Formats: sequence, C-alpha cells, structure tokens
Amino acid sequence: MSSTVGLPIKCKAMVARAPKVPMVEEEITVMPPKAGEVRVKVIANALCHTDIYTLDGHDPEGLFPCILGHEAGCIVESIGEGVTSVKIGDHVIPCYTPQCCETSCVFCQSPKSNLCPAIRSTQGQGLMPDGTVRFKDSEGKDIFHFMGCSTMSEYTVIAEISCAKINPKADLKKACLFGCGISTGLGAVWNTCKVETNSTVAVFGIGAVGLAVIQGAQMAGASKIIAIDINKDKFEMAKKLGATDCVDPTSLDIPVQKHIAGIMTDWGVDYSFDCTGNVNVMRSALECAHRGWGVSCVIGVAASGHEISTRPFQLVTGRVWKGTAFGGFKSRTDVPKLVERMMNGNINIDHFITHNFDGVLGTNQAVEALHSGECLRAVVNY
Amino acid sequence: MSSTVGLPIKCKAMVARAPKVPMVEEEITVMPPKAGEVRVKVIANALCHTDIYTLDGHDPEGLFPCILGHEAGCIVESIGEGVTSVKIGDHVIPCYTPQCCETSCVFCQSPKSNLCPAIRSTQGQGLMPDGTVRFKDSEGKDIFHFMGCSTMSEYTVIAEISCAKINPKADLKKACLFGCGISTGLGAVWNTCKVETNSTVAVFGIGAVGLAVIQGAQMAGASKIIAIDINKDKFEMAKKLGATDCVDPTSLDIPVQKHIAGIMTDWGVDYSFDCTGNVNVMRSALECAHRGWGVSCVIGVAASGHEISTRPFQLVTGRVWKGTAFGGFKSRTDVPKLVERMMNGNINIDHFITHNFDGVLGTNQAVEALHSGECLRAVVNY
Ligand SMILES: NC(=O)c1ccc[n+]([C@@H]2O[C@H](COP(=O)([O-])OP(=O)(O)OC[C@H]3O[C@@H](n4cnc5c(N)ncnc54)[C@H](O)[C@@H]3O)[C@@H](O)[C@H]2O)c1
Ligand SMILES: NC(=O)c1ccc[n+]([C@@H]2O[C@H](COP(=O)([O-])OP(=O)(O)OC[C@H]3O[C@@H](n4cnc5c(N)ncnc54)[C@H](O)[C@@H]3O)[C@@H](O)[C@H]2O)c1
Ligand SMILES: [Zn+2]
Ligand SMILES: [Zn+2]
Ligand SMILES: [Zn+2]
Ligand SMILES: [Zn+2]
Repeated sequence: MSSTVGLPIKCKAMVARAPKVPMVEEEITVMPPKAGEVRVKVIANALCHTDIYTLDGHDPEGLFPCILGHEAGCIVESIGEGVTSVKIGDHVIPCYTPQCCETSCVFCQSPKSNLCPAIRSTQGQGLMPDGTVRFKDSEGKDIFHFMGCSTMSEYTVIAEISCAKINPKADLKKACLFGCGISTGLGAVWNTCKVETNSTVAVFGIGAVGLAVIQGAQMAGASKIIAIDINKDKFEMAKKLGATDCVDPTSLDIPVQKHIAGIMTDWGVDYSFDCTGNVNVMRSALECAHRGWGVSCVIGVAASGHEISTRPFQLVTGRVWKGTAFGGFKSRTDVPKLVERMMNGNINIDHFITHNFDGVLGTNQAVEALHSGECLRAVVNY
Repeated sequence: MSSTVGLPIKCKAMVARAPKVPMVEEEITVMPPKAGEVRVKVIANALCHTDIYTLDGHDPEGLFPCILGHEAGCIVESIGEGVTSVKIGDHVIPCYTPQCCETSCVFCQSPKSNLCPAIRSTQGQGLMPDGTVRFKDSEGKDIFHFMGCSTMSEYTVIAEISCAKINPKADLKKACLFGCGISTGLGAVWNTCKVETNSTVAVFGIGAVGLAVIQGAQMAGASKIIAIDINKDKFEMAKKLGATDCVDPTSLDIPVQKHIAGIMTDWGVDYSFDCTGNVNVMRSALECAHRGWGVSCVIGVAASGHEISTRPFQLVTGRVWKGTAFGGFKSRTDVPKLVERMMNGNINIDHFITHNFDGVLGTNQAVEALHSGECLRAVVNY
C-alpha cells in the first residue's frame, strides 16, 4: 500500500446536506493535516443523540453541509507539522472537548475543570483551528466539520489537542463509546458529584447516558438508585445495571419530585441527575434532591431557548444545582484510563452496544435504530 | 427582687397588630416556659429586614397579631421542665434555626447541614412546639410567636433547642448581631462556599449581609472582591471592609454579568453571592461566575412566588448554584464560637451598628432608621 501521507485522500463519508434530510454517502476529499492537526482513519463510529439533534434541525447553530459523528475509534494515518503527542499508527479517540495542556490555559491547569476553550470558537463554526475546513465534496466545495470530530467518514482531520491516545490493544469498536455519552454518565457520578458509598441517587432518563449514571452510581456504592423514565421498557436494563427502584412519572398522580422526596425517601435523594434534556425534568430532579445537601446535576442538553427555573428557596434550603460536560473528564488524560479500565474488566460497556452495522452507509441504519427507541448505541464499522 | 420563676410576667412588648401598620407598644403577659422551653429577658434587639418584610405585609404567610424580632441578646430568666443545656442567668442568643442534636435527626447528625427541622412546622405557624402560644395581650387574647424568637419584647419564651449559650462576658448589645444577618454572610463564605485564598468574589447587594460577605471573603484571603449595588453610598463601607472594586449596574450599558465576566475578569469570578433577594440579581450572580467552576450562592430571600431561572448551559459549562440559610452555621454549636471570636478581636462587627436606641418603643425608631437606607443595624437596648 503506497503512503497517503501529505496527499489528499478520496474516501466515503456520510454528508448531512441540510437539516431534516437523510444523510447521503458521498465520495469526498480529506486534505492532509495542517500544523497541530492529525488525520485519522475511522474504524468504528457510534451514533449519539447530539448527531441526530443536529441532523433533525433542532440545533439553531447547526451548519450545513457537514459531516457529523463524534463517538469514534480511529487510527492515526498522518500528522501535521509540530505534532508530537501522537504518531502514525497510534490508536486514538477523537474528543469534542480538547485538552491543550498549556500553562497559560486556566482550565487545563485547574483540577476543577475539563472545559479547555483553546479551539472553542472555530470548532463552534465548523472549522479547523486555522479557520478553514479539510473536507471537499466531489465538486470541490467545502464541507463543515462538526464538534471538532466529524467521524462519519472513512478519514477525518482533528486537532492534536482533541486526540486521546489509547492502548492499541483495545477493541476500537467498543472503545469508541468513551468518546461521549458513556464517559459523560460515569464522570457525572464520579467527578462532578463525587457520589459516596451508601448515597441515594435518582436518575431521570434511562438512555445510554442515564444507564451509565446508574452503572457509575452502582460502582460508587450507592445504596438506593431510583431510575425514572416515561418509557417502562427501559427499566429492565436499568435494574440489570443496579437500579433498585423504577418510577414511571406518567403513572403517578403527584409530581414525581414529591413522590421521590416524601414517599420513596423522607427528604429526597443525595444526588439526582437529569439525562433527558427536558427543562421540566431538570426542575423535578433538583426538587427531589435532599433538603440540606442534595446535589442535582444537569447532563441533558436542552432545546435552544429553553430555561430552567425553580423557587430560590430550594437552594436556600440546601440543594445544589450543577451540570457536567463530558463528565468532567479531561479528554486526553482520562479517556485512555477509562479504556484501560474497560480492558481490565473494571468497566463493562458491552451492554450499551445494542446494534452493529457495517460500512459507512450503515450509518443511516444506525440513525433508524436510534430513532426506534430500543437502541442504546449502534456502532458502525467503517 | 422577688422571683418571677413559674409565674406569668407582665412586661412591655412591640405588638404587630396587622400588616402595614406601625407596631404598638403594649403591656403583655408572658407565660412561664413549658417543658423544653426557656424564658429569657431581652437585653438588646437588632432589627433585620425580615422583620420589616413581614411587618410590611410582604410575607403571605405572616401571622398577626405577632411579636417580631429575631436578632437579640438575652439572659435566661427561668427554664421549663427537662431543660438541661441552660440555667437561670445564662446569656443566650435566640436562633431561628434550632439544633436538636438528637441522634435521630439526620440534619443535626450531618456535617453538611444546619437545617434542623425539629420544630419547623409549629414555628412556621407562630406557635411554640406544643402548638400553643406564651403571649397574651391585655385582653387575654393570644399573640403569635415569630421565627421561634419574638425578641421585640422585654421577655420572650423560646425552645431550649433554639438557645445558643454564649460567654457571659460578651457584650449582648453587640453579640445579638450573630443571631441572623452577620452570621449568615460570614457563613456563606466560610461554610457554604469555602472560599479559598486568592479567590475572586462578587457580592451583589451591600447591606449588612453583603458587607458580612465582603468581610468574610477578605478574612478568607480573597484577592479580588467586587461589590455591586445600585446605591453608590454603599461603596465607602464596602471598600473599608475589603472590596477591591465597586460597580453600580445602573451606570453600565451592558448586563452586569457581562461586565464582570468579560471586562473585569476573563471568565468570571470564583464565587458570587446574592444579598438582595431579587431573582434577576440572582441570575446575574450565577452568570458572572467563572466558567468551569464558579459557585454562586443565593442568600437573599425572594418575594413570594418569584422564581430564579437561567439557561441550563450555564450549569453544563461548570457553574454551580447553591444557597445558604444562616450561613450553614449550626446554631447552638457555632454561634458561641463566633461570639468568642468577636471577643478575641478576630471578628470585628462594630461597623455594623450604625444606630442605637433605648427602650422597647425605640424599636419603631429602628424601623424608621432601617427604612432610610443608611442604616446597617439599629440595636435597641430594652
Ligand atoms: N452534558 C454532556 O456532556 C452530554 C454528553 C452526552 C449526552 N448529553 C445529553 O444527555 C441526554 C441523554 O442522552 P442519551 O443518549 O441517553 O438520550 P436518550 O434519548 O437515549 O435517552 C433519554 C431518555 O429520557 C427519557 N425521557 C424523555 N422524557 C422524559 C421525561 N419527561 N421523564 C423521564 N424520562 C424521560 C426517554 O424515554 C429516554 O429513555 C441528551 O440530552 C444528550 O444530549 C449530554
Ligand atoms: N439566607 C439567609 O439565611 C438570610 C439571613 C438573613 C438575611 N437574608 C436576606 O439577605 C438579604 C440582604 O439582607 P440585608 O439585611 O443586607 O438587606 P439590605 O436591604 O440592607 O441590603 C440589600 C442591598 O441590596 C441593594 N440592592 C437592591 N437591589 C439591587 C440590585 N438590583 N442590584 C444590586 N444591588 C441591589 C440595596 O441597595 C441594598 O444595599 C435579604 O433578602 C434578607 O432577607 C437571608
Ligand atoms: Zn486548555
Ligand atoms: Zn454525544
Ligand atoms: Zn435536629
Ligand atoms: Zn434576619
């Protein structure tokens, strides 16, 4: 095989041409990585609701045409000038939250945050850090990047600071899940809330993120884990992963927060998590937190323009409202450790992979599966 | 002097007959303390905005006629059956947040909370724990209690678990201030937020509570303390106590949160405090907190029915919203320590006492002073 280093690569990718229109498999050109960039071959891509959210036109800042995808396992094909932390052949997980590690970056230097803003503005505009794109369609026209990843392509280019280098022995078809939702759920429990042994926990929304929260809480030694979902089909898996109680709010004749703080517990739960993105659920999650010290964590991403609200008395009487992005994990430092823990058998993630498809075009089958409601993660082998 | 123990006491008190009507000095009868209760002679009473809030009819749950007052220094006149923690002659500060210390009380047992609910429901109904009152007017009719204290009277009855026993050498005319606002402001900084050395802090509303926050932050070693008030007259004292910057939001042409997080600081302040009770200010305080880790604490008590709101993105990007009641201090354990620190010269509170009046009727002069806006605390010597 002749080297592609330094040359444009023609390959297949799913292109989202416009909101609310199915993605199309196209032959695109992926330009070589510029300084500080890495070009990777995508081995496996898992579908996340954020991709669908943008594809379905719900993100008012969504840019089209673009290449979606941000939960992937990849192998480095070539590196740009000055790249030192990865080399050709390394296995990496692209991360939508970068980690620049600069001494001038207060976020990277602080143990309290993972929100490195190094390439935030260009990433938000669908561009690489230099303000241009690496994707061209068959007519030579630009295609936007997405979340700094754009992994629904056989090849993609990402910033070096977005590359988490992992153990090459890890199965990329599983490890890809640590690129978003699973890490987020586990980290919300372990990093953002630091749930202690014997804590009581309520988890609203039992998709992949909510299940990861349940799993993380179970591993942290929580004594009571209440799973809340309007879809009762979710409860079987929730129980398998550690939920001790399941509640369908639609079958109650009082607000779910009153049912949890009052009937199921005396004063509420020590920790609650919103994994739905619904602002009313976020309020319920806060208000079912324990008077005096209950902490409620927003994980779900709300529809644009929607706001959370509550009476300030809820805070004055000791409840704490916080949120998490990528579970507080520092991407390049922590994702490799999560992958090691998966390999050691310490974190089992097999149950999240409910569907497997093959080929770039399989991505549309994954979209269908995720829409069906029975799918946690559909992994597509590119 | 013949003993009054076991007998009703006739004395003077300020009675709030109805909302929006000035209090009247009346001769009332204070019944002896029942089991678990303590009758105290009030030496000094400081006026707090919560008294005025109820007097002015803003509290929809306010009960009339009642005796207001909850920041006082007192001497125990007699004790009810079973009272062991205080004896006749002890100096005490009545506290609206009790501390039952029972092993069955999860709040008293937890180091995370001071919100002992032992007598919460009767206290909220203006009654003593047995569901009756100890005050009779000259016609023998009941007068309600207020916040478990009702210190605008020469004598009052409080629950033993609401009595913080302090060093008898402390000046009660100063120590009374630890009954509410000053403790709240200091504790919000030290207990609820645990502000660290070199932190940046924003304080919204520079009344007595806001000034106590500034003082607490200065003592905690904060490197930047921004005082925000719509009344510029507040800035002189703020600076004296440690404010490094002062901002009047009405003189800005952008929202104050954008001015603080963007112009005065790169990403916001490490800690912010609302000491106004205005829900819009609470939002500004949250939104000027540092991306990634800023903590915002609600201290102000909002008007009934008012709600706080923000975009959940504010939390997902790392801001934390919390609140405090009585600064997180456990009343009977911690108030005596605060008083000791005042006596040692470690906590100076003299600057809070801007007005002194004499006699129970002096309370109405204190109300006038507090309404004027120039008053921090008016102490009335009974
Ligand atoms: N903060 C972050 O860094 C981050 C990272 C990844 C995902 N997310 C967000 O987390 C959320 C969950 O992601 P997911 O992949 O698990 O989604 P999902 O759609 O698979 O799961 C959501 C679940 O919530 C349930 N639900 C919907 N409305 C409900 C209600 N009113 N009450 C109770 N349950 C309700 C649904 O039935 C479903 O089971 C999404 O909003 C996603 O955007 C956030
Ligand atoms: N949580 C608790 O345990 C607790 C205890 C005591 C007092 N409080 C509350 O704390 C608050 C402050 O008490 P205080 O005695 O200092 O009151 P205060 O009235 O003396 O001070 C309030 C200050 O806020 C300023 N202010 C008003 N609107 C403003 C705005 N939009 N922007 C900036 N500043 C504004 C006023 O000019 C004033 O200086 C009150 O709401 C009180 O009820 C709470
Ligand atoms: Zn950084
Ligand atoms: Zn995602
Ligand atoms: Zn108690
Ligand atoms: Zn008060």
